[in-house]
Amino acid sequence: MTLGFEVVTPSRQDCDLLDPAQMRAMLDRVRPTHILHCAWQVTHGRFWTAPENLDWVAATLLLARHAAALGVARFVGVGTCAEYDWSDGGPGRRAETDATRPDTPYGRAKLATATLLGDLFAPAGVSFAWARLFHLFGPGEHPARFVPSIAIPLAEGRPATVRHGGLVRDMIAAVEAGAALAAMVGSDIEGPVNIGSGEGASLAALAGAIAAGRPGLAVENLPALGQPARMVADIGRLAALGVRPRGALRVLGSTQ
Amino acid sequence: MTLGFEVVTPSRQDCDLLDPAQMRAMLDRVRPTHILHCAWQVTHGRFWTAPENLDWVAATLLLARHAAALGVARFVGVGTCAEYDWSDGGPGRRAETDATRPDTPYGRAKLATATLLGDLFAPAGVSFAWARLFHLFGPGEHPARFVPSIAIPLAEGRPATVRHGGLVRDMIAAVEAGAALAAMVGSDIEGPVNIGSGEGASLAALAGAIAAGRPGLAVENLPALGQPARMVADIGRLAALGVRPRGALRVLGSTQ
Repeated sequence: MTLGFEVVTPSRQDCDLLDPAQMRAMLDRVRPTHILHCAWQVTHGRFWTAPENLDWVAATLLLARHAAALGVARFVGVGTCAEYDWSDGGPGRRAETDATRPDTPYGRAKLATATLLGDLFAPAGVSFAWARLFHLFGPGEHPARFVPSIAIPLAEGRPATVRHGGLVRDMIAAVEAGAALAAMVGSDIEGPVNIGSGEGASLAALAGAIAAGRPGLAVENLPALGQPARMVADIGRLAALGVRPRGALRVLGSTQ
Repeated sequence: MTLGFEVVTPSRQDCDLLDPAQMRAMLDRVRPTHILHCAWQVTHGRFWTAPENLDWVAATLLLARHAAALGVARFVGVGTCAEYDWSDGGPGRRAETDATRPDTPYGRAKLATATLLGDLFAPAGVSFAWARLFHLFGPGEHPARFVPSIAIPLAEGRPATVRHGGLVRDMIAAVEAGAALAAMVGSDIEGPVNIGSGEGASLAALAGAIAAGRPGLAVENLPALGQPARMVADIGRLAALGVRPRGALRVLGSTQ
């Protein structure tokens, strides 16, 4: 996909976004017309409740304020499916107009950020969209995350166990999420946009696709207290941009 | 009221709280055990929608993070009655457990701040309360605000007009709100606490008390589109601290 942008990707080495002076100097230097803001605290096992979520709310608000002052045309931020109210035990599919009620500090931090950015950008005339990522997997992820927690042991001839095989999730490969984010930047869609495949798969089925016939996979169906049984994206808004991420079952089935 | 605290009140001259480095240096120097955080953008006519609301969310989160890191024991922040859902046209009295749904950027910024501070302080073991101020008046306020907009012209022999005389509000003197905040700091109450008198008065009645028989007051009853007819605090939580602010009618009746 070619969108015709000159892309600048500040890394932690050349700009600490948690330092307002460094952030402002970077924006002054780059003078971006479009911003895709992905940076956040996402350390596996920590980010749901990490106090650093507050630092990233603050950093994001200050970044957006300075970008607006510099006349940025469009800003795309990254949120999460954890912003939704998943407590109702309903069909487990969420559209962007559905109710939000995050039950984690991470989800609340993301939702608050989206709300406040909307209040900033709308009157300033800055085009603004907010990506709500469903569940991702891909190269370089923490070995304790779902896909590598199955793939690595099996590849090494060791056993692997899925404890909550009945949970249904909408997982997509990080590369597909990246393409969806790029498409969002290049479009003029506004407001929240789910990024998922629209297809739910049970963790049991996903693990089976990862195993691809290799021995050593044990699937349990333990109850997962406090976890929604199904979390699936309605991807009507994303599809309207011409983007249709493949579900994890298809990706895993073609690469394992 | 004597609470036994040594009080340090940083002013804009010695610490710009919007500058994280200055804020951290101030906290490092003072090492407060208790913080009452009142600073915000509150310029009359601007603050409801000012983009600076985002700066104050960021500044407050960073202040709270550094205070928690330094081991602060208690933090009291200042919110607003505008955090509540006033859209239902009901009795117009709100308790702290009632639904929130702010319909202004200011209200959303305050509510987001309270939510995020709760997520920070609860696991950190920092005692945290959030004052929801109802409507204030007092010395030094902007002449376009309600009380001076009546009191000043009448005192100068000019006419004054109340356009929405039918609106009912819970107004208290700033000095009473200050005493309530001080009591909150000295208590161990947690969560949101309304600061009001618990008594509603119509703007017509309030203007009458301000006029105190002087000529020149005109009261209209124009509809106020988008404005709740009644906004009154349930002050059960505040009263449990032994604090009972007087309603504006009594304060104005005794001083005009």
